[in-house]
Amino acid sequence: MNQLKAMHRTFILVVSLLFFTVAASAQSHNSVYQVSTINALLQGVYDGETTMKDLKKFGNFGIGTFEGLDGEMVALDGKFYQVKSTGEVILVNDQMKTPFANVMNFHPDLTGEISNAKTFAELEKALDSIIKDKNYIYAIRIDGVFTGETRSIPGKTKPYPSLTDAAKTQSVFNIQDTKGTIVGFLCPQYVNGINVPGYHLHFISDDRKSGGHILKGGIESGKVQISRVTDFRMVLPSSDSFQQASLNQDYSKELSKVEQSK
Amino acid sequence: MNQLKAMHRTFILVVSLLFFTVAASAQSHNSVYQVSTINALLQGVYDGETTMKDLKKFGNFGIGTFEGLDGEMVALDGKFYQVKSTGEVILVNDQMKTPFANVMNFHPDLTGEISNAKTFAELEKALDSIIKDKNYIYAIRIDGVFTGETRSIPGKTKPYPSLTDAAKTQSVFNIQDTKGTIVGFLCPQYVNGINVPGYHLHFISDDRKSGGHILKGGIESGKVQISRVTDFRMVLPSSDSFQQASLNQDYSKELSKVEQSK
Repeated sequence: MNQLKAMHRTFILVVSLLFFTVAASAQSHNSVYQVSTINALLQGVYDGETTMKDLKKFGNFGIGTFEGLDGEMVALDGKFYQVKSTGEVILVNDQMKTPFANVMNFHPDLTGEISNAKTFAELEKALDSIIKDKNYIYAIRIDGVFTGETRSIPGKTKPYPSLTDAAKTQSVFNIQDTKGTIVGFLCPQYVNGINVPGYHLHFISDDRKSGGHILKGGIESGKVQISRVTDFRMVLPSSDSFQQASLNQDYSKELSKVEQSK
Repeated sequence: MNQLKAMHRTFILVVSLLFFTVAASAQSHNSVYQVSTINALLQGVYDGETTMKDLKKFGNFGIGTFEGLDGEMVALDGKFYQVKSTGEVILVNDQMKTPFANVMNFHPDLTGEISNAKTFAELEKALDSIIKDKNYIYAIRIDGVFTGETRSIPGKTKPYPSLTDAAKTQSVFNIQDTKGTIVGFLCPQYVNGINVPGYHLHFISDDRKSGGHILKGGIESGKVQISRVTDFRMVLPSSDSFQQASLNQDYSKELSKVEQSK
């Protein structure tokens, strides 16, 4: 009788685990998880929405920012870094929060090489030649030698300024011939309002001593890995600041101004 | 020893089931699941992407269409209906596929009453007074007496025409003082390109003999239930037709033309 019960339990256990595994794997395959929207960030909705502890559940790779717009986030190989406006790079702690981020479990399905892409425009062109179509979100990882300018914005206090105003206080870092990794996304134009159409790339050096949001520059030589995203999940804040923000206008001009120095 | 093993198994079983339940419930709370994008539908990407069997896993409530743009979908209380262009309403079978749909497990968190909203504009105004902000997707259910015009488009064969051209062949149904349910969504402007900004409502009669996509009309008296969506998941087709479609232009004008007759 006990034997029968044990067998029955084992059967249920196997079935449950199977279900759980299938559910978990279905969720993680080329699936991006997003906190809030870019329009909310542009309008100064910098309240921390999701803790690093929770965000890490949805991926080992990605970019974003922190509560109060305090620096640039780079997530790489499961480690989450904050590039501060002082230039310092630290590992985040689990209690820190983000108002805007995109993370995923990175599984590349396109690879390539880039050489001598000195400007951001040349870097974009080189990536375009690997990616070809523009109807999906693509996650991008480039391991190589970077020369260019990155930025990080010092944290703000309430009442929060718009991203356009906040970006006026950014620190800009000149990075020369530095081995490291570019982490970011290419988004299609049709996500305008939700995320950043075009390339949105952050950098972190191999020695984890420099990095930030890329404003200018390119890759001398590097290995490119790209993941085509076919599953997009976005979780929106229930906060008053999100509810009351003006999110339904076209902020394309403001966005391209704060994203790159062209 | 056997007893110990059985206890150990029971423990693992309980933990596994707990994990699975938490994972499942986290996914279903005011979470909308979308197949493809409205721009893909506008461009004639009508290939069936998701079976009804799979779609039903993500909700008991929603709207959409079918492979080849063959009629209007209404999902209500876990039953999925096809309103054909002949006017006939049938329960779908699990093998049927959809190129575009939005479903969710419906949990209302706002309720209200509507009376004497004779035109679509009056219906929108009455719903606006309940919903107030426009920064989220809202799922809408109205049980009441409907008078107006609905449509359903006959299925197309390849090469598929654009939605604008397909809509020229639509059947229009005059529905008078008919008890039934309106099922649909209000989307914010910032989802433009991905879904339909504004109200997108389908109707199905209580006797399940008439329905369709609402073009005109309103509600004499009805009970409104609304769910604010803070979790949005979109799964994109990997098909050649989706990959090659022109999805990054602004089709707002084409969309508003096929959505309502104002």
